[in-house]
Amino acid sequence: MTEFLKVKTAPEVLSILDEIPPLPAETVLLEQAGGRALASDITAPESVPHFARATMDGFAVRARDTFGASESLPALLEIAGEVTMGVAAGGALESGRAFAIPTGGMLPGGADAVVMVEYTQVLDGKMIEVTRPVAPGENVLDIGDDIREGETIFEKGWRLRPQDVGVLAALGITGVSVFRRPRVAVISTGDEIVPVDTGTVPPGKVRDINTFALAAQIESAGAVAGLREKVPDTLEDLVATSLRALAGHDMVVLSGGSSVGARDYTVRVLERLPQSRLLVHGVAIRPGKPIILGLSGEKLFWGLPGQPASALITCRAFVVPSLERLQGRRAEWSRQSAFRAVLNRRMPSVHGRTDFIPVAIDRNVPGLPEALPIFGKSGAISLLARAEGYVIVPEHVEGYDRGTEVNVHLF
Amino acid sequence: MTEFLKVKTAPEVLSILDEIPPLPAETVLLEQAGGRALASDITAPESVPHFARATMDGFAVRARDTFGASESLPALLEIAGEVTMGVAAGGALESGRAFAIPTGGMLPGGADAVVMVEYTQVLDGKMIEVTRPVAPGENVLDIGDDIREGETIFEKGWRLRPQDVGVLAALGITGVSVFRRPRVAVISTGDEIVPVDTGTVPPGKVRDINTFALAAQIESAGAVAGLREKVPDTLEDLVATSLRALAGHDMVVLSGGSSVGARDYTVRVLERLPQSRLLVHGVAIRPGKPIILGLSGEKLFWGLPGQPASALITCRAFVVPSLERLQGRRAEWSRQSAFRAVLNRRMPSVHGRTDFIPVAIDRNVPGLPEALPIFGKSGAISLLARAEGYVIVPEHVEGYDRGTEVNVHLF
Repeated sequence: MTEFLKVKTAPEVLSILDEIPPLPAETVLLEQAGGRALASDITAPESVPHFARATMDGFAVRARDTFGASESLPALLEIAGEVTMGVAAGGALESGRAFAIPTGGMLPGGADAVVMVEYTQVLDGKMIEVTRPVAPGENVLDIGDDIREGETIFEKGWRLRPQDVGVLAALGITGVSVFRRPRVAVISTGDEIVPVDTGTVPPGKVRDINTFALAAQIESAGAVAGLREKVPDTLEDLVATSLRALAGHDMVVLSGGSSVGARDYTVRVLERLPQSRLLVHGVAIRPGKPIILGLSGEKLFWGLPGQPASALITCRAFVVPSLERLQGRRAEWSRQSAFRAVLNRRMPSVHGRTDFIPVAIDRNVPGLPEALPIFGKSGAISLLARAEGYVIVPEHVEGYDRGTEVNVHLF
Repeated sequence: MTEFLKVKTAPEVLSILDEIPPLPAETVLLEQAGGRALASDITAPESVPHFARATMDGFAVRARDTFGASESLPALLEIAGEVTMGVAAGGALESGRAFAIPTGGMLPGGADAVVMVEYTQVLDGKMIEVTRPVAPGENVLDIGDDIREGETIFEKGWRLRPQDVGVLAALGITGVSVFRRPRVAVISTGDEIVPVDTGTVPPGKVRDINTFALAAQIESAGAVAGLREKVPDTLEDLVATSLRALAGHDMVVLSGGSSVGARDYTVRVLERLPQSRLLVHGVAIRPGKPIILGLSGEKLFWGLPGQPASALITCRAFVVPSLERLQGRRAEWSRQSAFRAVLNRRMPSVHGRTDFIPVAIDRNVPGLPEALPIFGKSGAISLLARAEGYVIVPEHVEGYDRGTEVNVHLF
């Protein structure tokens, strides 16, 4: 048996990942930028809006002309014109006058507020009564009120959501510098693995789950799963396929070669790759202890356990953060998609080890949703399919009692 | 002004959407099935595993041969052979004997449990001492323990996650029947809208935000945004583009033509489309009241407000659920991505109206995260960019007090 030189804690692995440089940037069209991570800060090249706009339908006025106006003593203003949508207001507004204006219309010079149409009454088409005063700036989006020129809008590494794409459109930014999407080769191996389309699987064999499930997880993390291959469990085959994979990908994820069993090929494969360096050999995590991380030049080489549930969870625990890192983000277990729930059962763990425990969620309870730990026989893939998320028990915690509030990460 | 015939509540609109039939099914390869929604239930065509497997490295035994074994009085068993990974075990296990077996190895006939290697000691290579008893079935994944043949694994409409793809791979399902991805045409209009790449935007005009932001949101909901076009604000142009869009898409989303202002083109455009039917004309929601939903044949025609923040929120509130529905799912505001937070400020609302209120989230507090409502001047797109999610205030609630626990939906 290969001895683990120095098993690392899960947070130590994340720290190592944070030292890895991101991939180069590329420029994409704004219509393709959704979901991509920015390769540089974005500062506003102009102000939005670049003219004072009405935020309500009504009348553009000088606010002071309405001071003291009320139902019983309305202010009387002369209609001086009408603002047309999308057109610069014609002429300036003089005191005692008002311009009809639609939502989004440009305030005429001299106007500093908009009276909502609800608080006006048109008399004979020429005059209006204003029954409520407005303050300067009321119902007006002034120049730069939305975005100020020169303001930093988004920081490097930020992943663009639909509304962020909208902000870039508002600023006229049509090309966006983003980190290149990582290209990942997914390789699985193991004497017991047969192709997924095998008609009748012989006794002792199982179908190749990992190339499919890992590729799906890698793609859902915003990367591209390129090569996907089941490789015979021989050192020569694994080295040859890994070399081929390195040529066209930024990362190789090999599952099934790193068991502590009779053969521990993954490290030996890594040693045969150009400019190789072993960074991690074993992690104090359950499931999935025998995890290997190496570099070949600047390319990442992961060895994951072959058992599918362990492979998927360690992929989520480490490979996904490494993909985030390659896109200029922190390697972390995202807190954003996590939510609070109450454990409805004790969740045992062991000091010094990080546990990823699948849970089902019951929302039909008063208060916080309940998290039901799914314990099952090791090796069952259906266990993950029954889970809605997982709870991370950190290495310094010896389990959680029933009733503890925990963070659930969605699967 | 067009009068709203009958403004509907937001839940009424969702009920209407639930009556719309899903798109036809198509069969995709398993490697493309991640994220897609199943067009039919999936039942297991075989059992997983289809042979009894060891879940630990150790020795396959007859459990009863270990009964009473302890450190001080170990059971003594003869090593009858070794199970090779991926190969049917050779010969049956007789009483008093054990087979060495790796994790995932096939149990030999006659064996019903596995003793972990940690609780054994090999003597002279021929015998082992077992220092702990095992129960029948211990450390064994029996036939069908993971998935039973004939069991319903996933229901129609279920969206496949990476682990679900793994389950299908385990079952040898290489082609998956899923609902076709909706193809959506995104059209924006408005006199004030200029193309996003306009160098210097004239006073009174603004760049086209909606085609970009709405398309990004539609794509992040698993649909395909095909045609994306800014159309001049004339009835003829809008009808011509909508007719063209209907030819190649399942849905048209038109923003900016449905204001209550001087022109209300969206309904008039709908009337000019073949086999058209108006389903919704106005929704009691803020932001975004002037929402229109119609059908042209079986194709959906949405009219959204032109103001970008309103367009994005109403798209999230209604268009995204309609895309879910077209993929065989319920039209609802997903609770799965929602999490609990505590309001750190009062959130006023009005009885009879559903409010979607953007919030920032502060997680650096003890207990539940805090939700900070982002109120800002209407029409600011940056308001949504500063939000991490939104809180839905239902129509029967007159706002929430500070300190109320609310559900936050991620944006």
